[in-house]
Amino acid sequence: MKIAFIGAGNVAWHLSQALAAAGHEITAVYSRSATSREALARLLPAAKPVASLAELAGMAADIILIAVPDAVIATVAQQLQVPPGTLVAHTSGSQPLAILEDINGARTGVFYPLQTFSKAKAVDFKAVPLLIEARDEQALQKLEQLAQSISDQVQRVSSEARRQLHLAAVFACNFTNHLLGISRELLQEANLPPGLLQPLIHETIAKAALHPPFEVQTGPAVRHDENVIAGHLHLLAQHPRYSELYRQLTDSIQATKNKV
Amino acid sequence: MKIAFIGAGNVAWHLSQALAAAGHEITAVYSRSATSREALARLLPAAKPVASLAELAGMAADIILIAVPDAVIATVAQQLQVPPGTLVAHTSGSQPLAILEDINGARTGVFYPLQTFSKAKAVDFKAVPLLIEARDEQALQKLEQLAQSISDQVQRVSSEARRQLHLAAVFACNFTNHLLGISRELLQEANLPPGLLQPLIHETIAKAALHPPFEVQTGPAVRHDENVIAGHLHLLAQHPRYSELYRQLTDSIQATKNKV
Repeated sequence: MKIAFIGAGNVAWHLSQALAAAGHEITAVYSRSATSREALARLLPAAKPVASLAELAGMAADIILIAVPDAVIATVAQQLQVPPGTLVAHTSGSQPLAILEDINGARTGVFYPLQTFSKAKAVDFKAVPLLIEARDEQALQKLEQLAQSISDQVQRVSSEARRQLHLAAVFACNFTNHLLGISRELLQEANLPPGLLQPLIHETIAKAALHPPFEVQTGPAVRHDENVIAGHLHLLAQHPRYSELYRQLTDSIQATKNKV
Repeated sequence: MKIAFIGAGNVAWHLSQALAAAGHEITAVYSRSATSREALARLLPAAKPVASLAELAGMAADIILIAVPDAVIATVAQQLQVPPGTLVAHTSGSQPLAILEDINGARTGVFYPLQTFSKAKAVDFKAVPLLIEARDEQALQKLEQLAQSISDQVQRVSSEARRQLHLAAVFACNFTNHLLGISRELLQEANLPPGLLQPLIHETIAKAALHPPFEVQTGPAVRHDENVIAGHLHLLAQHPRYSELYRQLTDSIQATKNKV
């Protein structure tokens, strides 16, 4: 298929290259930043870096993929005028399909790769879940075909379910990363090497993948080990914010026990 | 070395078998539960299951390892009477060396395997950090030698640093597991498969091992994406406790930005 990209950030970077490697033709890359659009277009055999959405819309493409920050999708959609019948899809986990409804005459969809991307790190797309959505079956099949050409994990997911998935991802990934950061800060304070907890972290994640996490919860909170909890809160006296988090998470673990 | 175990739970289960496999002689296993001590002793070529601490103390052993729940260590230590010069070490991350000071005439130490254990899952001890502590150099070297016979990750760590390490582990593992549980509950509510977030979770952990987590934080909190945050809090309306956790973690991420 012929695909044009709006955006040249982390998602566009990896997705466009994976699609090109799977035999699709990336015809154009639009970005407001000349450096970004040129850097990415240089990596794609047939792509032209373009500086205006009007120029991009005028080029031949089966699908236009919008891979810009969530907050900018609506603005891009309002400015975009495409030939009737063009399929336009965004790549966001948090935004509904309906955010594209202002695009005159376009068929719209969502093409969401559920992974965190950074330009410096290669991605194996085969294992990345690709969640797709569209209003009509024909568009769905087109997006599905495109998705299956790069990933083994393609699923149809509604805007509503995707929104809840994004919330779940914030807990499992963004918040988890923050806890790992706190943990690292505490290790540093005790002059302990930052890698010391890695085996334990890996085992925790592996166990939580095999069993419902609430059922394999360990630690002082679930044991109601009040002496250890009091000792930890004492150690956190210099970190009122972490101390409050510790209390809240401990309470939540203890309240959750009843759900298991 | 000849080693006697007090306790037949998860830690004793794995540690005693790893030490036996490395050529040490496990002479005795004490547990109040006949089923537990007999089940473990059956797996150890030379071990006798014993029902009294006095009997255990009377048997020949270079080292007695105490692997009982944290809350019981002090009680065991008060009851234990060993031949002068016997090295007695506990295996707890959260308890200080000083908890063993009541053992008359014994040399005391800590032999702490930094991993989470469950009987059903095999453990590769080579990769498990073993943290040791003792009051005198001779005892330290003995514990070090024992530790190095099963692990490539042996470190001397003081009671104070180990306490902070244990606190760090609660954030990185116990609390992380709870967040993964919340995430799974949210996926279930949307009828999404529980494994859907696994690739993202693995990438998050891998990234946090390569870079300081605070520096690679992603998500709506660090972007101050107030629309998405408000939408998530709306979705969590039925879960006041998770909603409060979401707020606290978001605040903490935003406050931490300034530290990077």
